[in-house]
Amino acid sequence: MEYIKDPMEIERKSFEIITQELGEKTFPEKEGRIIKRMIHTTADFQYADITEISKEAIDSALTALREGCSIYTDTKMAMAGINKSVLKELNCEIYCLVDDPQVAKEAKEKGLTRSMVAMKKAVEDEKTKIFVIGNAPTALFQLCHYIDEEKKSPSLVVGVPVGFVGAKESKDELVKRSVPHITTLGRKGGSTVAAAIVNALLYMLK
Amino acid sequence: MEYIKDPMEIERKSFEIITQELGEKTFPEKEGRIIKRMIHTTADFQYADITEISKEAIDSALTALREGCSIYTDTKMAMAGINKSVLKELNCEIYCLVDDPQVAKEAKEKGLTRSMVAMKKAVEDEKTKIFVIGNAPTALFQLCHYIDEEKKSPSLVVGVPVGFVGAKESKDELVKRSVPHITTLGRKGGSTVAAAIVNALLYMLK
Repeated sequence: MEYIKDPMEIERKSFEIITQELGEKTFPEKEGRIIKRMIHTTADFQYADITEISKEAIDSALTALREGCSIYTDTKMAMAGINKSVLKELNCEIYCLVDDPQVAKEAKEKGLTRSMVAMKKAVEDEKTKIFVIGNAPTALFQLCHYIDEEKKSPSLVVGVPVGFVGAKESKDELVKRSVPHITTLGRKGGSTVAAAIVNALLYMLK
Repeated sequence: MEYIKDPMEIERKSFEIITQELGEKTFPEKEGRIIKRMIHTTADFQYADITEISKEAIDSALTALREGCSIYTDTKMAMAGINKSVLKELNCEIYCLVDDPQVAKEAKEKGLTRSMVAMKKAVEDEKTKIFVIGNAPTALFQLCHYIDEEKKSPSLVVGVPVGFVGAKESKDELVKRSVPHITTLGRKGGSTVAAAIVNALLYMLK
């Protein structure tokens, strides 16, 4: 069994193949880096067609990251996939509250999802400027609600819940808002996609 | 914004939609539960066509889980996505060595990927019966090598690396072996897919 073992070389060659297979489908430089990393993490070229990056999203996110913001993720999976050493270099923090015992207790009492209760706490945290939602439509609906109520004005919402019940609808709500956002229209998305988007942004600052 | 908030109801309805849209494409009961959960986590129906479950894989995995085995994952993301409370009920353990400082040191010295060095250590652990590879083709190639050398006879290999360099090839190697396996032919796969497969197995024992 002969195979390439060097991780850097694997990644370089992967992006070369993705660029080649995208063919005439080209993007502005920074948008392209995000979309190609989404394809890299899924091997699914449909992300070239369903990804929507609002005009100011990348600049707004990079400013927040340069200032050392906190990032909230709706799942531990998305959090696990985001590059911690680059975050540390930038003095940024990342957290997820979905396993917080207080959140679990409150969710049970109120008949809400843990994602919803956790989102409320994240919105109340001043340092949290970037919201990364890869799984729970309820969390994204909830965040849209807080944006409408002017309880929060995020620097970026990565809103890419995946699934069959509410995922599409929650993203349709997100794009109606003027908040800086990166999303995937329709059903597709997920924690790996969310992490890929954040990592692409982080690598722009390396 | 009106939407379903109950997580159990969201999941029930999701699986109903998936079954409906699969139409005439049906599977044996247990295989179907795995494949539908893979679709649930990706919103990608292609998994119905590219998933290969070897004949004895499910029974072999369930036996190992019932006996309280350890599960090795190649990424922290896959580990994060696997249901810990069911694992605990079964007295099973799960671990990932990719961030182990000793692994990092050895990988640097030998010019190997951390995944490869970590795999060597996992293979040497007697309690580890299930190997879950959602990301690194090098880890899967390495595991195939240890199987050939009869250093390990896993109860199940979940081999679903994603990507453009080596992923397909590593899975082609896996299916040539008589080891119990669940894989996704071609480029697709990933940590969320890997976690979905393991969770589907765990939920069969709940």
